[in-house]
Amino acid sequence: MDYKDAAWPVSRRVEDLLKRMTVEEKIGQLIQPFGWKAYIRNDDGTIKLTEEFKSQLAEGGIGSLYGTLRADPWTGVTLANGLSPREGAEAVNAIQRYAMEHSRLGVPILFGEECSHGHMAIEATVFPVPLTIGSTWNTELFRSISRAVAAETRAQGGAATYSPVLDVVRDPRWGRTEETFGEDPHLVAEFAVAAVQGLQGERLDSHTSLLATLKHFAGYGASEGGRNGAPVHMGLRELHEVDLLPFRKAVEAGALSVMTAYNEIDGVPCTSSRYLLQDVLREAWGFDGFVITDCGAIHMLACGHNTAGSGVEAAAQSLKAGVDMEMSGTMFQAHLHQALEQGLITEDDLNMAAGRVLELKFRLGLFDRPYVDPAWAEQVIGCKEHTALAYQAAAEGIVLLKNEGDLLPLDSSSGTIAVIGPNAHAPYHQLGDYTSPQPPGQIVTVLDGIRRRLGDSRVLYAPGCRIQGDSRDGFPRALACAEQADVIVMVLGGSSARDFGEGTIDLRTGASVVTGHAESDMECGEGIDRSTLTLMGVQLELLQELHKLGKPVIVVYINGRPITEPWIDEHIPSIVEAWYPGQEGGGAIADMLFGDINPSGRLPLSIPKEVGQLPISYNARRTRGKRYLETDLAPRYPFGFGLSYTEFRYGRLTVEPSVVPIGGEAAVRIDVTNAGARDGAEVVQLYVSDLAASVTRPEKALKGFRKVFLKAGETQEVTFTIGSEQLELIGLDLKPVVEPGEFRIQVGPDSTKGEIASLMVEG
Amino acid sequence: MDYKDAAWPVSRRVEDLLKRMTVEEKIGQLIQPFGWKAYIRNDDGTIKLTEEFKSQLAEGGIGSLYGTLRADPWTGVTLANGLSPREGAEAVNAIQRYAMEHSRLGVPILFGEECSHGHMAIEATVFPVPLTIGSTWNTELFRSISRAVAAETRAQGGAATYSPVLDVVRDPRWGRTEETFGEDPHLVAEFAVAAVQGLQGERLDSHTSLLATLKHFAGYGASEGGRNGAPVHMGLRELHEVDLLPFRKAVEAGALSVMTAYNEIDGVPCTSSRYLLQDVLREAWGFDGFVITDCGAIHMLACGHNTAGSGVEAAAQSLKAGVDMEMSGTMFQAHLHQALEQGLITEDDLNMAAGRVLELKFRLGLFDRPYVDPAWAEQVIGCKEHTALAYQAAAEGIVLLKNEGDLLPLDSSSGTIAVIGPNAHAPYHQLGDYTSPQPPGQIVTVLDGIRRRLGDSRVLYAPGCRIQGDSRDGFPRALACAEQADVIVMVLGGSSARDFGEGTIDLRTGASVVTGHAESDMECGEGIDRSTLTLMGVQLELLQELHKLGKPVIVVYINGRPITEPWIDEHIPSIVEAWYPGQEGGGAIADMLFGDINPSGRLPLSIPKEVGQLPISYNARRTRGKRYLETDLAPRYPFGFGLSYTEFRYGRLTVEPSVVPIGGEAAVRIDVTNAGARDGAEVVQLYVSDLAASVTRPEKALKGFRKVFLKAGETQEVTFTIGSEQLELIGLDLKPVVEPGEFRIQVGPDSTKGEIASLMVEG
Repeated sequence: MDYKDAAWPVSRRVEDLLKRMTVEEKIGQLIQPFGWKAYIRNDDGTIKLTEEFKSQLAEGGIGSLYGTLRADPWTGVTLANGLSPREGAEAVNAIQRYAMEHSRLGVPILFGEECSHGHMAIEATVFPVPLTIGSTWNTELFRSISRAVAAETRAQGGAATYSPVLDVVRDPRWGRTEETFGEDPHLVAEFAVAAVQGLQGERLDSHTSLLATLKHFAGYGASEGGRNGAPVHMGLRELHEVDLLPFRKAVEAGALSVMTAYNEIDGVPCTSSRYLLQDVLREAWGFDGFVITDCGAIHMLACGHNTAGSGVEAAAQSLKAGVDMEMSGTMFQAHLHQALEQGLITEDDLNMAAGRVLELKFRLGLFDRPYVDPAWAEQVIGCKEHTALAYQAAAEGIVLLKNEGDLLPLDSSSGTIAVIGPNAHAPYHQLGDYTSPQPPGQIVTVLDGIRRRLGDSRVLYAPGCRIQGDSRDGFPRALACAEQADVIVMVLGGSSARDFGEGTIDLRTGASVVTGHAESDMECGEGIDRSTLTLMGVQLELLQELHKLGKPVIVVYINGRPITEPWIDEHIPSIVEAWYPGQEGGGAIADMLFGDINPSGRLPLSIPKEVGQLPISYNARRTRGKRYLETDLAPRYPFGFGLSYTEFRYGRLTVEPSVVPIGGEAAVRIDVTNAGARDGAEVVQLYVSDLAASVTRPEKALKGFRKVFLKAGETQEVTFTIGSEQLELIGLDLKPVVEPGEFRIQVGPDSTKGEIASLMVEG
Repeated sequence: MDYKDAAWPVSRRVEDLLKRMTVEEKIGQLIQPFGWKAYIRNDDGTIKLTEEFKSQLAEGGIGSLYGTLRADPWTGVTLANGLSPREGAEAVNAIQRYAMEHSRLGVPILFGEECSHGHMAIEATVFPVPLTIGSTWNTELFRSISRAVAAETRAQGGAATYSPVLDVVRDPRWGRTEETFGEDPHLVAEFAVAAVQGLQGERLDSHTSLLATLKHFAGYGASEGGRNGAPVHMGLRELHEVDLLPFRKAVEAGALSVMTAYNEIDGVPCTSSRYLLQDVLREAWGFDGFVITDCGAIHMLACGHNTAGSGVEAAAQSLKAGVDMEMSGTMFQAHLHQALEQGLITEDDLNMAAGRVLELKFRLGLFDRPYVDPAWAEQVIGCKEHTALAYQAAAEGIVLLKNEGDLLPLDSSSGTIAVIGPNAHAPYHQLGDYTSPQPPGQIVTVLDGIRRRLGDSRVLYAPGCRIQGDSRDGFPRALACAEQADVIVMVLGGSSARDFGEGTIDLRTGASVVTGHAESDMECGEGIDRSTLTLMGVQLELLQELHKLGKPVIVVYINGRPITEPWIDEHIPSIVEAWYPGQEGGGAIADMLFGDINPSGRLPLSIPKEVGQLPISYNARRTRGKRYLETDLAPRYPFGFGLSYTEFRYGRLTVEPSVVPIGGEAAVRIDVTNAGARDGAEVVQLYVSDLAASVTRPEKALKGFRKVFLKAGETQEVTFTIGSEQLELIGLDLKPVVEPGEFRIQVGPDSTKGEIASLMVEG
């Protein structure tokens, strides 16, 4: 009997295995080479393992492979040379089989995959980006989506993923804003819990479960100037109250993997922060999973942060601080042995880290059932149920920002529509960052969606311009289309799409090369931070030209961060923000424009009036300042805001009891009525204001929300419970505490309005 | 024998006096009513004490009066109803005499006055604002200026002042940027020491000395979004390394008064921060002066920060935290007695605070020599020596940003000059915030300065437009002037001038009402934060119109914060930044334009390219991010930058020894040569980079500077000493420490360039 015996408890299996391992084999468990470099695809879809992979496995084994199925310009994997779902599953099986059979102790590889909004592999379902998910305010839906993502990924052997992103975004200049659930810690925390439950499922060793990795731990959403990975200026109280909250909730929900952030906080890099990785994560929260770095983060300690004088020091520091695995870097492999010889680390440190990795592999069932079923992969990946979920998420995440004179919904029975703009029919533009190339037809654009409803003859299309650049070559055609139309739908915004080499659109003809884009159009995504928030290129100018025709114009934004365009806010009657709505996004947008979908998306972040207003989160502290000379501090569109085609009314708010002791609970009740003529969903939002406390508090803070569907005329009572979790603050001693005093309760449709009641907490 | 005996040591006098005081009298020492409300000016220049003052004195005494001579729209004191220097001195004597004779124990009043850049009183010398002072990089000069300010202020009885401002500015949107010495903690610290030494002099009880108040303690220069008083997001390491450094150095230099800041840091208001006021200020630094609040800051605890549930709590919290006096608020007076009764404070707390106030009064000599000499006031205030210092500071603080084709200096022997722009001849616009109205003729504008050189006939003037607003009424006259001229000097920028009721300029005629301004032109100063950094109104448009004439154009900025105008940077050959250069500023600018002054001002902060680049301090941590899509992270004009009419060359840099032990010192030497044909001053700047450390470090940090005057052709060796102070960092335990390793030394003309050498510190 030994570690291979599934009947043994995991702890004993780990112990036994560790005893048999050499130092090299232990270090091997802590590394994660690039998975796509482990093999070469043969012409028949099978693979050939590389010598690099084989020798690495022979040297000490491979703990994990990163992005084995990842297809994008970085990996060089395209639709043409990539693997289908079945081929992918077979390839991963082949790699795993080699590892099981050729490593001395038969240790399986943990395949780690990117799943920001769907598995980043060919043909996997591409869901809306997290910012659109955040706009749905529907955590149940997201739990289902997370289950779907887990099933699709595990079907090809992926057993860990590098999501969810739990960063609380402070500055939308940041290119990764699209990857977040927005600016509110409670909203992010609720989605965090849904992600963990959805991805990890009931049992980690199920064929539909995936290890969730919480990232980026911590403070990454508060980087200086919205610049990716830049230093974070923050005190510990804010860190605990805002940035750590979603992580804490996700750990409580059972998350078993955490990724360190690139950034430093007040001078200490997260990747070597004993405080974060030991004191907070393991000791205070009782986390018992493993910690992985972000890609190259250990190298940054020596070259960037310069808190390590050498690679050896960097490797030792991060291991000592609590890192267990290095994501696709070379520092652990290159330096840990030497660190051990120099006494910077001990073999116990290695045992601790390798033990944690191995424990998760046992718990994932990788030792006992290392292979996946290619037929299941073919069946589940991109299946109808998942496509439907992608559609629903897009439909619920689209935010109607403005609808003057009820221009929307459009009547689909008559008239001609001109669909104009660089994002009207550029499939990859609507997918966002962390997406692999997808076969033609998998992505429904706005043009596709409108054509699907109206047929080709009543729909005219012209791209008009690109996202960036000053070419006006497409203006004449766009004007010609618009002149023939009754209504103009302008699809503008941004793009996080990398260059997949699919060609581009001919602006003059709007012609057939419509599946691709030019690389230069990428203006969002990881590493693409902006100093302005306006539309790029000549998009505004194109819109203004078309607006002169005097026809009704609807603007649809497809993009990854808030757009500030005062002219549009003033002159265009109907404005829709979809963020990156995923592969079904165009269909959902079209169905929403024509009224089959009643918009129920609400903003998960504040949209400012201008970049100079930043930072602008709704939950700023009370003393956030008065105003700027040029503008007040109110955003253009507030947190929680979004219009509907129907009208919701709120009844009297009650809080019972209205006085509670510390530790007590009160029930908050309100009647919400759909007072309009259309069915629809409302997001009922609960905000709490702590009127006086030992430390300063936000003006108000979201503490509950409920998305309720109401038929026309229907009334529903919505109840919330307010207890310690909703009332606590991080006290002077940095510990959560509920303090006596008065709390103001606001329940309503967004962060700026609602019914008000009071709750007294007695000491 | 009692406390009145000057032969007793101060501590015994305080003890004796405290024993005799009632609780009311002790509380009385902690309050500071508005001084201008203590009296009414009679028509003959004498004063009549108000009943309010008398009754307050009778009730428990008055510790201090705020702004007794302050003249501005807030106090309602104007040139017409204000006091001359002699009258002011007599008035203060009368108030003091009443206090000495009518308070039960004969306790003198501490008169506290604003002296941001000169005593804020009529006819006092108006020096350039601190931002211009910071641009001089001449701390010796500032020490002399501080002596002058102290003499002028004490001559009218002022014994304490609310300067220097030691806030390290992070975000130039902030309206108080003009009041700071810039963005670098070392530069600010050096001016801090000069201020304390200059203001307090050798003996506090001298008739030319003043109690310096360090403000705003702490973090006030790092408020969210550059919004005045907004929350500060900062960890303790940055707080100690950046914001607290100037305060620590100033306390070491003997500063005896500190003002708490309005803002909170990470949830804790500075005005009730035991950590700041006790642990850091008194315990760690050994500060033995007294702590005063900012105006209304205690009230903010209850209404704003909401960390106090009532006024009583607010008063008690701040006293308990270490506040000794409340600046011109009513919370101490209204609530401390009740706080004592409720047991929130003890009589020992009152003794402690009142004792500190009384101790300073004794040390200032107020008990022994309570009155001032009105003849001396008349003599010293606005004297020639002080005017000369004001001129020198302006001359040394003007920064030449661009001088393409050596357009400057101008030849004064021939030609006609058009002096155009809203700041060409608007006296108050060049003074900055915290200025009292001054008699006609005291302020030399740019127009005055140029006319003084060339005579009236060769100088044409038109205001052209205002700072704000869209009136183009002045364009035709400006164009007409410019058409007749050989060279156009455009004086643009901003204004922190409040409305003193002196009328305005007629844009059409440029006519005689030239001493005033419209209130709406105020776009900087306390409480006036901006969301953009561009020129306001139609200033740029006016410039562009004139530029079309094809004549040489020089732009002079007079303003309180960096301006971002890419068009100007590209199209205008010569650009001068003067900030608010004070009463002699126009003369200094003119003399610099014509070459009598060789510019030697250097930027004390980075000027960004656009507001979306913020924050942009040169001393950011290494990992500050890569770039924005639209722009890199380099400023338009870097920290330390400024041009000269001559050329300086740097010789070989040596560091001896090149290896030192911890605690050791090295001498840094470099030869600097004036290689041009004009005499001039260079600011030799020393930057240190810590290549690897236990915490992250700035890319580089200013650690020394020397302003050296060099005749044409002259070479001078400049030496610096590098020791613990230059090499230390704030370690993981938040304590200063020098760590072994390599340091890169850069000596040169600004933060971006210079000679490089290396220093090794051995452990």
